[in-house]
Amino acid sequence: MPNDHLHPQQLTITRAKREQLNGHAGKVIWFTGLSGSGKSTLANALEVALHARGLRTGLLDGDNVRRGLNRDLGFSEADRVENIRRIAEVARLMMDAGLVVLTAFISPFARERELARALIGPDDFLEVYVSAPLEVCEQRDVKGLYKLARAGKLAHMTGIDSPYEPPLSPDCTADTANRALPDIVQDLVRLIAPAAPSPTRISNAFETR
Amino acid sequence: MPNDHLHPQQLTITRAKREQLNGHAGKVIWFTGLSGSGKSTLANALEVALHARGLRTGLLDGDNVRRGLNRDLGFSEADRVENIRRIAEVARLMMDAGLVVLTAFISPFARERELARALIGPDDFLEVYVSAPLEVCEQRDVKGLYKLARAGKLAHMTGIDSPYEPPLSPDCTADTANRALPDIVQDLVRLIAPAAPSPTRISNAFETR
Repeated sequence: MPNDHLHPQQLTITRAKREQLNGHAGKVIWFTGLSGSGKSTLANALEVALHARGLRTGLLDGDNVRRGLNRDLGFSEADRVENIRRIAEVARLMMDAGLVVLTAFISPFARERELARALIGPDDFLEVYVSAPLEVCEQRDVKGLYKLARAGKLAHMTGIDSPYEPPLSPDCTADTANRALPDIVQDLVRLIAPAAPSPTRISNAFETR
Repeated sequence: MPNDHLHPQQLTITRAKREQLNGHAGKVIWFTGLSGSGKSTLANALEVALHARGLRTGLLDGDNVRRGLNRDLGFSEADRVENIRRIAEVARLMMDAGLVVLTAFISPFARERELARALIGPDDFLEVYVSAPLEVCEQRDVKGLYKLARAGKLAHMTGIDSPYEPPLSPDCTADTANRALPDIVQDLVRLIAPAAPSPTRISNAFETR
């Protein structure tokens, strides 16, 4: 290029600069729990609350990951490990772009969650254990998967013929069987964005137009 | 959950809502060209310009993708195709999160770039052909890769023993051998964000604090 004096290193927009523009830090909120425990419902509700406070968010779940990036992966143990590895890598990329990233996957193995924590960085990673007894999840059976698994028509169902390893020391436990959704969301907002302005004070970057 | 009346569908934060908060649309700017053509330099400079105008951006390049998400992939043709597929999927996820995503990869095959365009959606995908003659790229040889390839110490080098298929109808051609970087960046800013306020008018979401 004619402009040899321009060094790309000096130009790079860093994570810190993106966070400054957003007015908040990037983070990863990692929801883990059985199918039917309420991960997606909770992640959705939390995103609504954070968005209303002006935080820039992104959500990764089965709907947008399993059908896209990870469409080549099945449900064997090896594929489930690779599934989680890729999700952690993408969550990190999105966090580096300044976003609060919510991930809602069963993520049944403690080892993979620890790998995600290490990859993302322990200071930026919040593990939320979405806790509900198997009986409760099976009763809800939102997607009808437990019924299929009990009938022997679905293999590798977590809680039935594939193990779920509960977090030993999660950053937060969300007891969806006994607590109301708005209360859990309120706790999480306090944990994630204690300094965020209340929803009524939000403007946007282009309000002067 | 006790709150059965809360339907997650109604809560979901859509791409449109994220774009509204940001004050601009999400997009993918796909840079393609030979090694040494100036993709990364240009993507970096463009990101600086967009960031200064308050746009929320993310950058995907070899540094943050090849060492992370795609660390399991080599440089065979099959792996290069999978490399681009994953990058396109991640770019889409980040665009759905409201970001202007810049990707800087050789992406030598027209078919894979068309796959990326289809996956991201033609209206949101801008292909920028970073054009410089092979001789110029080889003379620059920023990473010393051409020298290695010519010495037979590096296989699958695009332009040497692996083909590069130039875009037939790119959305923009950046002639880095003959035009100055700031001029090219200015053209791209006009193309991507014609309505963005000038850098001096930028505030941020938390300016009232």
